[in-house]
Amino acid sequence: MWKKTPFTKKAKCKLPIIQAPMALATTPELVAAVSNEGAIGSYGAALDTPEEIRKNIHKIRELTDQPFNVNLFTPLNPSRDEKKIHAMNQILQGYRDELGVEAPTIPKKIPSKFDEKMQVILEEKPAIFSFTFGSLDLNYTDRLREEGILICGSATTVEEGIYLEKNGVDMITAQGFEAGGHRATFLHPIKDALIGNFALIPQLTDHASVPVIAAGAIMDARGMLAALILGASAVQMGTAFLTTHESPISREYKNAILKASSSSTTLTRSFTGKSARAIRNRFVDEMDSFEELTCDFPIQGRLTAPIRKKASEKKKEDLLSLWCGQAPNLSQDISTSHLIINLVINMDDLVKILP
Amino acid sequence: MWKKTPFTKKAKCKLPIIQAPMALATTPELVAAVSNEGAIGSYGAALDTPEEIRKNIHKIRELTDQPFNVNLFTPLNPSRDEKKIHAMNQILQGYRDELGVEAPTIPKKIPSKFDEKMQVILEEKPAIFSFTFGSLDLNYTDRLREEGILICGSATTVEEGIYLEKNGVDMITAQGFEAGGHRATFLHPIKDALIGNFALIPQLTDHASVPVIAAGAIMDARGMLAALILGASAVQMGTAFLTTHESPISREYKNAILKASSSSTTLTRSFTGKSARAIRNRFVDEMDSFEELTCDFPIQGRLTAPIRKKASEKKKEDLLSLWCGQAPNLSQDISTSHLIINLVINMDDLVKILP
Repeated sequence: MWKKTPFTKKAKCKLPIIQAPMALATTPELVAAVSNEGAIGSYGAALDTPEEIRKNIHKIRELTDQPFNVNLFTPLNPSRDEKKIHAMNQILQGYRDELGVEAPTIPKKIPSKFDEKMQVILEEKPAIFSFTFGSLDLNYTDRLREEGILICGSATTVEEGIYLEKNGVDMITAQGFEAGGHRATFLHPIKDALIGNFALIPQLTDHASVPVIAAGAIMDARGMLAALILGASAVQMGTAFLTTHESPISREYKNAILKASSSSTTLTRSFTGKSARAIRNRFVDEMDSFEELTCDFPIQGRLTAPIRKKASEKKKEDLLSLWCGQAPNLSQDISTSHLIINLVINMDDLVKILP
Repeated sequence: MWKKTPFTKKAKCKLPIIQAPMALATTPELVAAVSNEGAIGSYGAALDTPEEIRKNIHKIRELTDQPFNVNLFTPLNPSRDEKKIHAMNQILQGYRDELGVEAPTIPKKIPSKFDEKMQVILEEKPAIFSFTFGSLDLNYTDRLREEGILICGSATTVEEGIYLEKNGVDMITAQGFEAGGHRATFLHPIKDALIGNFALIPQLTDHASVPVIAAGAIMDARGMLAALILGASAVQMGTAFLTTHESPISREYKNAILKASSSSTTLTRSFTGKSARAIRNRFVDEMDSFEELTCDFPIQGRLTAPIRKKASEKKKEDLLSLWCGQAPNLSQDISTSHLIINLVINMDDLVKILP
């Protein structure tokens, strides 16, 4: 019975489970594997070009005929501070020297190509389009609706959820404090929008009339059933899918998650300029004292990109952005299919043997 | 069926519900009202004298024959920094002038009278003794056990829970990031021990063999059932009891909770020197920039005490420590009895109509 929720009815899928759209970590193979199990696979397309996005959507369609989600970041207007960029370049130079990479040049204007990407979405018509970092231009909301594409926004507070609903979303992802990766916060300073799922889910579902998708530290049937009881209509799981066999992240990154503990992660702006939850490593710890000099997103991300790229090639996970939620202890080295099947079996068992 | 858990069996109570020990906000009347409903009332005795503690325990016993809990802070060794005290006194002088209070003198050594208080506990034998801010001296663990008093420690990470269990506690309170009041953290820097309940409860219960009590933003049957499903053996509720008719806090403080939202609270050291979750108000906001100059607990608390006392008398809640968890939107102006009866009825309903 837990399988039918307002979310599954809207999304026309079998299970109230969404694999989180994790940019650069969601290959067509992973997305399709999830959707083929009756959950919703999500393609995190934010960092890909419009051409790549079209190609990847076609590839997903080759691998599945089930509904899936495509996610973009809404465009931001970073304030460009030349002094900060200069200072940050000096701070990062040590890592560049260590890895043998050059300082990148930062274009005066970093093109988001958001409109071109939206054009691809509107033409390719995934079942769900989700966005994060803000609200969506109402013009796009109308056009998505005309194309029959479901619209999902991301909220970190009750206020943001209400704002998104007023602006026409069909569903809201509630991103708890526990969640790995970037904070979706857009109406508040980050420090005022750090709300644990135990607080966020019931307070938001009390105020929202569209389905709420709970995200953050949901790793197994216990977390899933707890989220549904608190009022969520589905769960979005990121870290749990990062360690699956279909996940494209490196063996080193997977191992870092598999061996991490509840106190291994922290929020940091050091990698991209936007607050995000990652496993603490040398880079996070050393950069902690330069918080004041961290540039805005996506400028900071451009400045650290060559370091992260080379660190990845050299398998130096101490300099990598190891995005991860707060429950890595519950992660498993497992196939996507096995993960989802276990969730279903364990949910059925949990419901039967309830306390 | 949810009523019988390893916790209720150990504590010999009817319901797996504990009213949190909130120092200065738990009168004998409140504690007894809770215990009389089959839950566990907790007397937050940390800031009372040994004589007051004995008197209050006697008073609780006059009002109930049911089990209850008494809580103390384990003693801390604050580092006394005269320069910081001087600087903080200058910062606080504006508030003192505004309220017409004098600067307090801070004794060279602030007596905790912990041993005298423990003597009272050992003689008076409440069903449960709980402590926070550290681990308990093993000598006391042995003596409490000899007297048949159950021992409960507070953990904010899996590591702290394991540590407490190794040191002989009978049960562990898992304090999620969402919880109101002081952080119990003792093994880590605070910033490494901010773990939401969705992550903390399952990871800790996977590692602990003693019952785990979930605390933080649990306000109603939804939160309670979710916590039990995640593996908790009982829930501890603080904010939910603060707004009950039996709660001794001021009308102004109750109203501040009742009208607060999910994003109203923050962690602050400004009031006591120890990180604690409170509703943001003028004092919290203005003191935010002086974090570096904040003195250790309990010195900072002594420095701000006259301000808080006078602010309370003058009903100026903008200068008060309004401890509160992250789900004030779910708080109710209700009797203790009504709150607990509703929890029971709604739990039974939730279990029946599960998703």
